[in-house]
Amino acid sequence: MSRLDSFIRRVSAQRDCLNHVVGLVAGVPGPVLELGLGNGRTFDHLRERAPDREIFVFDRRVAAHPACIPDDDHMILGDIFETLPAALARTGAPAALAHSDIGTGDAGSNAVIAAFLGRTLPGLMAPGGVIVSDQDMAPAGWERLPLPEGVPADRYFIYRKPGA
Amino acid sequence: MSRLDSFIRRVSAQRDCLNHVVGLVAGVPGPVLELGLGNGRTFDHLRERAPDREIFVFDRRVAAHPACIPDDDHMILGDIFETLPAALARTGAPAALAHSDIGTGDAGSNAVIAAFLGRTLPGLMAPGGVIVSDQDMAPAGWERLPLPEGVPADRYFIYRKPGA
Repeated sequence: MSRLDSFIRRVSAQRDCLNHVVGLVAGVPGPVLELGLGNGRTFDHLRERAPDREIFVFDRRVAAHPACIPDDDHMILGDIFETLPAALARTGAPAALAHSDIGTGDAGSNAVIAAFLGRTLPGLMAPGGVIVSDQDMAPAGWERLPLPEGVPADRYFIYRKPGA
Repeated sequence: MSRLDSFIRRVSAQRDCLNHVVGLVAGVPGPVLELGLGNGRTFDHLRERAPDREIFVFDRRVAAHPACIPDDDHMILGDIFETLPAALARTGAPAALAHSDIGTGDAGSNAVIAAFLGRTLPGLMAPGGVIVSDQDMAPAGWERLPLPEGVPADRYFIYRKPGA
């Protein structure tokens, strides 16, 4: 498979996973956490699919398309190792959904970030809340959910917090 | 439609157009010209789909994935306004196919590039050769061909040189 085919599959899988998890949390109150703004495409997708939710976006800097940048109240700038542990003060309520797409090309760095998120995100999420991630973050005690049809195993990871 | 959906459609349309034009030139001898290496995904796709063709890639610099970089004989570095008019000396034969994906965010600059390519590419192409482009370059006397099914009109442009 060419890198173009593989890329289309990867981005399509991301879209399918986002659509899937928005449905999974339909009955769970709370905002959405978007970890990594990047070019803003997935933020734009989430706000289209979940128009009634507040979406808080975390990133080191803003480098997105101008039409895909959250307002200042919802853009939490800085190193997530610092901003995320204190995020409840900004979000105001436990989140229904978190999407993490902050993997880098470096496996060691990805593992450190995934472990941090696996420890930190659970405290920010509502019971029944869902995490979708491009990294395996194995939050302790959470249920790993199946991926939507057609998404290759281990390309994405979906977890649900117990207690809904 | 979200920017993520739109992006998936755009990249899928590109893949569909590349597959389509490789089929269109099956009976036309000659190399492939890839205008713009970028991340190397479409170069990788073309070499997978047309494994028996030489592919000459033109770009100002190499910033692709290491696995998607042509060898030195097939990477023509420099400003295409200078390298393309002299390209026959490098390619050795008129081309069967040219793929141009060098549009920038600037419409004025795109128009200048498209006009240049519309003047310059025809002299590098074999009779029956095909150009697929993200810009309307209207090569004089060439036939504009229909796009493959599902590709939005004016997202890509396919032209065939007369005389096959």
